[in-house]
Amino acid sequence: MEYLKIFAPATVANVSCGFDSLGFAVDTIGDEMTFTKTTEKGVKITNITGANLTYDVDKNAASAVVKKMLIEAKADFGIELTIHKGFSPGSGLGSSAASAGGAAFGTNQLLGNIYSELELTKFAMFGEEVACGTPIADNVSAAIYGGFVLVRSYNPLEIIKLPVPKELRVVAIHPQIEVKTKDARDVLPTEITLKDAVTQWANVGGLIAGLYADNYELISNSLVDIIVEPVRKTLIPHFDDVKNTALKAGALGAGISGSGPTIFALCKGDKIAEEVYKSIQESYKNTGIDFEMFISKVNPNGMKILN
Amino acid sequence: MEYLKIFAPATVANVSCGFDSLGFAVDTIGDEMTFTKTTEKGVKITNITGANLTYDVDKNAASAVVKKMLIEAKADFGIELTIHKGFSPGSGLGSSAASAGGAAFGTNQLLGNIYSELELTKFAMFGEEVACGTPIADNVSAAIYGGFVLVRSYNPLEIIKLPVPKELRVVAIHPQIEVKTKDARDVLPTEITLKDAVTQWANVGGLIAGLYADNYELISNSLVDIIVEPVRKTLIPHFDDVKNTALKAGALGAGISGSGPTIFALCKGDKIAEEVYKSIQESYKNTGIDFEMFISKVNPNGMKILN
Repeated sequence: MEYLKIFAPATVANVSCGFDSLGFAVDTIGDEMTFTKTTEKGVKITNITGANLTYDVDKNAASAVVKKMLIEAKADFGIELTIHKGFSPGSGLGSSAASAGGAAFGTNQLLGNIYSELELTKFAMFGEEVACGTPIADNVSAAIYGGFVLVRSYNPLEIIKLPVPKELRVVAIHPQIEVKTKDARDVLPTEITLKDAVTQWANVGGLIAGLYADNYELISNSLVDIIVEPVRKTLIPHFDDVKNTALKAGALGAGISGSGPTIFALCKGDKIAEEVYKSIQESYKNTGIDFEMFISKVNPNGMKILN
Repeated sequence: MEYLKIFAPATVANVSCGFDSLGFAVDTIGDEMTFTKTTEKGVKITNITGANLTYDVDKNAASAVVKKMLIEAKADFGIELTIHKGFSPGSGLGSSAASAGGAAFGTNQLLGNIYSELELTKFAMFGEEVACGTPIADNVSAAIYGGFVLVRSYNPLEIIKLPVPKELRVVAIHPQIEVKTKDARDVLPTEITLKDAVTQWANVGGLIAGLYADNYELISNSLVDIIVEPVRKTLIPHFDDVKNTALKAGALGAGISGSGPTIFALCKGDKIAEEVYKSIQESYKNTGIDFEMFISKVNPNGMKILN
């Protein structure tokens, strides 16, 4: 293979109760990236569109991953990279994870598919570290494995792919404001009560059971976050309004995507998803804040080859 | 139906990572109870064997449940009850839960099966409150539903029955010492770090995913409790030795049953379970502490009708 074009999906991490543990991939929003083999070794970014990102190969999440993989695999070729960002960095939808995960996936294709999804996740985590300072796994693993994922453990890294009920739909709204990851981390409590932790892990258990059992009512009941959402929502204007609007329109649940500001809702079926989309759109128009929205299936496959 | 004889199983609550949320029923250990319809209304305990428990119908967990149910159902008959305890109160194996759950199950049979398992769990929780002061649901729901259960929520009460991988076996040792429930509660931390909570809920998620996916390796990796076990094990002599012995002999994991002192191990298949049983038995002989042991399947059905 000499040339590859891929789609690298946006991802929703945390998923209400599953802070730092759960994530899922989205179908309609993501980056497009191309990989061209070169006889000259090393990596070069030839074009970036859709966002203002660095061309410095050691500082760009995508090229840093490509470079690391080519070196580790002792490749006798190089890669020229183009990146078209389909959604904004800082949205809470795993922008750097799409770039880093896409880079890992695409490079592996040109290398002849020598790495497992777990190994690709580790490479992509290096990209997250380059971009954000922390090698977080939830977004990159969701982008690479597709569907719902559980980061069961970091040491050793263990990613569990969970089933995706067929009628599950995502509606998301991205208010055009900035939530700094540092601020989103700073509001987190260092300690929580054991009582609240029990409530939260019972919900994590319920959500996972609901995904396996195709039980939408259980998924709905379990999409509750009593620990992180109450403190982070203060950084997101009109969060409660959006959530209540979504629930009133029939959503199974709604919460903060990653560290925000994007708010996601999960819905059963296209019809309810469209209702939820329209209701949120209608209500957010009055806030005076610009926003983007999308509606999507949960993407069961993650990365896609486009050529 | 005029007469009923039932088996009410012992249960293991918490199951390592799932403090106050998870439980499962055991197959070979439990109580036998009989229920005889009487024309005279009300409840009477005519015989208790196997343990020294009160005959006061308002203070005994079983009769208190029978009485409450007969009143709520406006029954035109009474019940005479016998209880044969097959395992000791204070073992950490849900002794009062077996009595209370068995009472709810048996009474419901004589009432013509008018209550759901969820309603029976609520009645049995009243029995737990009578016996222990707290209407805890994990043991009683495991005894009534059978198999593995998740207490997803208390308010409203929601119990999720989880699948049981076919080869799952339990080995348990009950050192003949007393661990007071109050002491077991007093050593619990009020607060825990968010970091530890995340580790724990990722394990809860992993254990539940493992049960659904028949993934014994994932079950094994997830049977980790970094919050409750480290403080409670100090109340249980030789806990670490037993656990290490079990793991060395091939157990998937081991932990404290309920609030102890019983220690349980989960194993894949009869052969490994027998190895684990023998190894623990051999090693505990040297401690000078009396003990009882059993080996069992996970009981997928809970209560059993014996006549």
